[in-house]
Amino acid sequence: MLAGAAMTQDKPAPNAAADPVLAGYRASIDNIDAALIHILAERFRITQAVGAYKATHDLPASDPGREERQIARLRKLAEDAQLDPDFGEKFLRFIIDEVIRHHERAKAG
Amino acid sequence: MLAGAAMTQDKPAPNAAADPVLAGYRASIDNIDAALIHILAERFRITQAVGAYKATHDLPASDPGREERQIARLRKLAEDAQLDPDFGEKFLRFIIDEVIRHHERAKAG
Repeated sequence: MLAGAAMTQDKPAPNAAADPVLAGYRASIDNIDAALIHILAERFRITQAVGAYKATHDLPASDPGREERQIARLRKLAEDAQLDPDFGEKFLRFIIDEVIRHHERAKAG
Repeated sequence: MLAGAAMTQDKPAPNAAADPVLAGYRASIDNIDAALIHILAERFRITQAVGAYKATHDLPASDPGREERQIARLRKLAEDAQLDPDFGEKFLRFIIDEVIRHHERAKAG
């Protein structure tokens, strides 16, 4: 093994990949990321259905009051979960921006 | 009911909030967003522990190979879930940027 051969000095270089505690943390992060991706995929499935439903039922595409309520609610949830509320809001805006991009693409396509 | 009283004309104005199908979609989106916020809170708890562990165990703060592997994996997972892989990658970078901000704040504080 090349990495092993390079570590024949008295103090081996710290190797993050070989640390079992760090490997455990990373396994948890990888599981969480897979969950996030799948939940996001489902969220976009729903917003896609919402876009189609609004278009066929003569409902307005955007609803500023709804967005304000979502932000206030997520900030509160973030705070309760000891997550920075500003990040919670930034996250929702990041997702909503992507939803808008999807809707624009759907209109253009 | 005020909303009902306002709808005595032949064609009422479309009211998104009063549409039961849309209300159902929104209830699902709100549940999903609450799940996302709580899973993100847990992810940041772990990366905070990782930061503390690396600092006390003389491990390098960043690991570019790890990030590349995470991106490749998430792109694949996104694709399987019919989510735009570019969005999957953008999402991971959005999260990692926040993790870096947390670590910088922890160093400064």
